[in-house]
Amino acid sequence: MRRTSRDIRTANRYEVLRHIIADSPLSRRELAQLTGLSQATVATLVTELLDLGLLTDVGFEDSEGGRPRGLLAVAAGRGALVGVDVAETYVHAELFDLSLKVVARADREVRPGENRPEQVVALIADAVDEVLAGHAGRVLGVGVALPGQVDREGGVSVYAPNWDWHDVPLRALLAERVDPPLHLDNPLHAGTVAELWSGAARGREDAVVVNLGTGVGAGLALGGGLYRGIGNSAGEWGHTTLVLDGRLCHCGNRGCVETYVGAPGIMLNLRELSPSSPLLHPDDQTATVRALAAAAAAGEPVAVQAVRDTARYLGAGIADLVNLLNPEVIVLSSWVTTYLGELLLGEVRTAVARHALRHSLARAEIVLSPIPTDPVCLGAATFALERALAPTPTMRRTP
Amino acid sequence: MRRTSRDIRTANRYEVLRHIIADSPLSRRELAQLTGLSQATVATLVTELLDLGLLTDVGFEDSEGGRPRGLLAVAAGRGALVGVDVAETYVHAELFDLSLKVVARADREVRPGENRPEQVVALIADAVDEVLAGHAGRVLGVGVALPGQVDREGGVSVYAPNWDWHDVPLRALLAERVDPPLHLDNPLHAGTVAELWSGAARGREDAVVVNLGTGVGAGLALGGGLYRGIGNSAGEWGHTTLVLDGRLCHCGNRGCVETYVGAPGIMLNLRELSPSSPLLHPDDQTATVRALAAAAAAGEPVAVQAVRDTARYLGAGIADLVNLLNPEVIVLSSWVTTYLGELLLGEVRTAVARHALRHSLARAEIVLSPIPTDPVCLGAATFALERALAPTPTMRRTP
Repeated sequence: MRRTSRDIRTANRYEVLRHIIADSPLSRRELAQLTGLSQATVATLVTELLDLGLLTDVGFEDSEGGRPRGLLAVAAGRGALVGVDVAETYVHAELFDLSLKVVARADREVRPGENRPEQVVALIADAVDEVLAGHAGRVLGVGVALPGQVDREGGVSVYAPNWDWHDVPLRALLAERVDPPLHLDNPLHAGTVAELWSGAARGREDAVVVNLGTGVGAGLALGGGLYRGIGNSAGEWGHTTLVLDGRLCHCGNRGCVETYVGAPGIMLNLRELSPSSPLLHPDDQTATVRALAAAAAAGEPVAVQAVRDTARYLGAGIADLVNLLNPEVIVLSSWVTTYLGELLLGEVRTAVARHALRHSLARAEIVLSPIPTDPVCLGAATFALERALAPTPTMRRTP
Repeated sequence: MRRTSRDIRTANRYEVLRHIIADSPLSRRELAQLTGLSQATVATLVTELLDLGLLTDVGFEDSEGGRPRGLLAVAAGRGALVGVDVAETYVHAELFDLSLKVVARADREVRPGENRPEQVVALIADAVDEVLAGHAGRVLGVGVALPGQVDREGGVSVYAPNWDWHDVPLRALLAERVDPPLHLDNPLHAGTVAELWSGAARGREDAVVVNLGTGVGAGLALGGGLYRGIGNSAGEWGHTTLVLDGRLCHCGNRGCVETYVGAPGIMLNLRELSPSSPLLHPDDQTATVRALAAAAAAGEPVAVQAVRDTARYLGAGIADLVNLLNPEVIVLSSWVTTYLGELLLGEVRTAVARHALRHSLARAEIVLSPIPTDPVCLGAATFALERALAPTPTMRRTP
C-alpha cells in the first residue's frame, strides 16, 4: 500500500481530533506540540474541522504578554453517533456526543437459540430506537459491530461461527429499520479502534487488543492504525491452534484457542475439574462466568484452579502474539475480562513469561482495558466518526 | 506511526527503482503508469536517482509522432552491494550489481559446534573477501542476515536460540574485517524484503514469507512494507505453540512450531516413524533433508509418510497465520523449501484448508518462492540498497 498525501491528511485529522477529544480545550500551538505537526498544518486542519462543525472556539488563554491564543474544544452537541455492540448473548446500543461521551444506553438480551438474522435485526433496531428516543439533533452515523467475519464495504455478515450465519446481508436488512449511514464491522476491529482513540493503545506503535467473550479474537493495531488484512478478517486468533487435535471448535477445527479461553471454554475448564460444580449454569455463560469470578475471588479452591487453568491457556496463546508480532502492549478486553480480568492478570503475565521470547517479552506490557464503558460500542461509534471525517461526501458542511 | 511526507518520498523512490530493476528500460511515462504516481513526481524522483548515480539514460523510443521519450535503466555497473546469509549450517555471501543481479558468490560451511562469535565472524569475513576479490568499483554497503533476534540499529545479535548467543555485538566484531556501511538484520526480514522487491510479494498488500530452515519463522509484509514490531523481533512464528506441552524447544518452551517443521523437527518426524531409517544422518541436517526428499520423490513409503506428517504440522501452523493475518499470499522459502517444497506443497494446501476459516482461506494463495538464488542474500543486499536510497548521508552523490 503506497499511502497518499490524502491518507496522511485524513490520519492527521483523526490525530488532531483525538487530542482535542482527550484533552480539550487546547490551543493550536499545544496541538502542534502534541501531534508533532507543523503549526501551519494544524491551523489548516483546525479550520477544516471548524467548517465541518466538529470543533468550536471556546475563548482565549493569555499567552504571557503575547497575542492571546484561541482555545478549541469539540462541538460536543453539534451531532451524535450511535455505536452498537452485537454479541452472542446481548445487544448493547449507546448514543455518543461528538466528544465520544455516552449520552444514552439500551441493552437487549439475545436468548439461546434466538439468533436468526431477523431476530437479531429486531433487537438492534429496538435498541437503537430506544437510545434515539429523546434525541432531536443530527446523527452522523450508526456503527454496528457483529461477531465473526464482516464484509464492511458490502455490509454483509460473511461468517458468524457461533450462530452458523453465512453471507447474511445485514446492512440491507437493518436499513429497513435504522436510518443510514450504517457502518458494519466486527467487535475485534471496533474494540481495537476504541483502544487506539481512547484507551490503552493511544500513542502506541504496535498493540494487540485481546477480546475475551463467547468468541475470542485479537484486534491488531500495527504501525499506529488498525490492521484489517486483505479481506477485513485479520484477528481471528481465537481460531489459531493451541492444542493440535484438542477440543472440537464451532469452526470445524480442533484445539483452537477459543475452545480453552472463550466463555464456553472456561465453562469446560471448570467442568473438567468438577463436573457437578454448583457454579455451572449450563445454559447461561454469563451467569457461570460471574459465579466463577465471585467464587475465585472468595478463594474457593475449584474456582481458583479453574481460573488458573484458564490463565495458563490464555498465557500460552498471548505469548504466541508476543512472539509473532512483537507488540508494545496487549490489552485484555470484552465481557469475560470485565468479570475475570483482575483475577486472571497476574497468572496470565506469569504464563506469558514462561512461553515468550525474552527480548520480545521485555517490550510487551499486558494491561486491562481502561475504557470504563463498552469499548465495542465506543469503537463502532468511532467508525462512524472516522467515516464522517474522511474527505468523502458522507457529511455535509454545516451552514 | 504517523507517516511523513519524507517517508512517502523514500517509499516512492523504492517503488520507482523496483520497477526499473524489474522491467528496464522504461520511460518516465511508463513509470507513472506502473506506479500510479503523477508524471511530475516521477520526473523529480528520476532526477534524484540519476543524480545518485543509480539510473542511466539508455536512449530514446519513438512515441508515434510525438517527442521521443527518454528510456531509463539501472546503472548496473555504477556500484555493488554485498548480501550475506548466515544460517546455522552455512554462510553464503553474494555480490550484486545495482540491478540486483548476482555477480559473484562464496559459500562457507558452519560445522556443528563451530559457532562461537569469532568463528562465525571469520567465516563471514572470508566469504565477503572472496566475493570482493575481483571487484574494483564502489561498494554501497554490506547487508548481513543473522539467525534469531537482531538489534539492527545497535548492530547486535540479541538472541540466537540455536547457538545460545546473547547480546553479541556482531557489527563491531565484523567491522574489524569488513568495510562499512554494514547493515545487520535477521533472515526473516531479509527474505521478506527480497520477496517484496523481487519475488512473490511484489505488488501484494499483505504477505507472509515462511522461512523453513534449521529454525523457522514468518516474515510479515503488511500494508506493502516489512512489519518489524516494536523491537525488530516480529515474525517468530517458529516459537508459537502448536502442541501445548509438546516437544521441547531450544527456546525453553514446549510444542513450538519449529520443533515440528524445522530441519531437526523433520528429522524427529522421520525418527518417530523409523528410528533406524538409513535416511537419518544424525549430525547432518542437510544430508538428512536431502536424502528424505530423494526417497519421498521415489515413493519410499516411510519417507512419503514423514513428508506427509511434516506437511500436516506445517499446514496447521500456516492456517494460524491465515486466520490471524488474513494475507493475500504465503510464500514458502529457505533451504528446507528448496529440497522439500514441491513435495510438501500439495499436502500443505490440503492441511491449511482443513484448519483455516473459509473466507480467509479463499483469499490466501500458498506458493513457493520464485527467487532462483538465495533470497536471504538478495534481501540483505536490498537492505543495503534501501539505506543508500533513504535521504540520509549514507551515500554521496557521484561526481
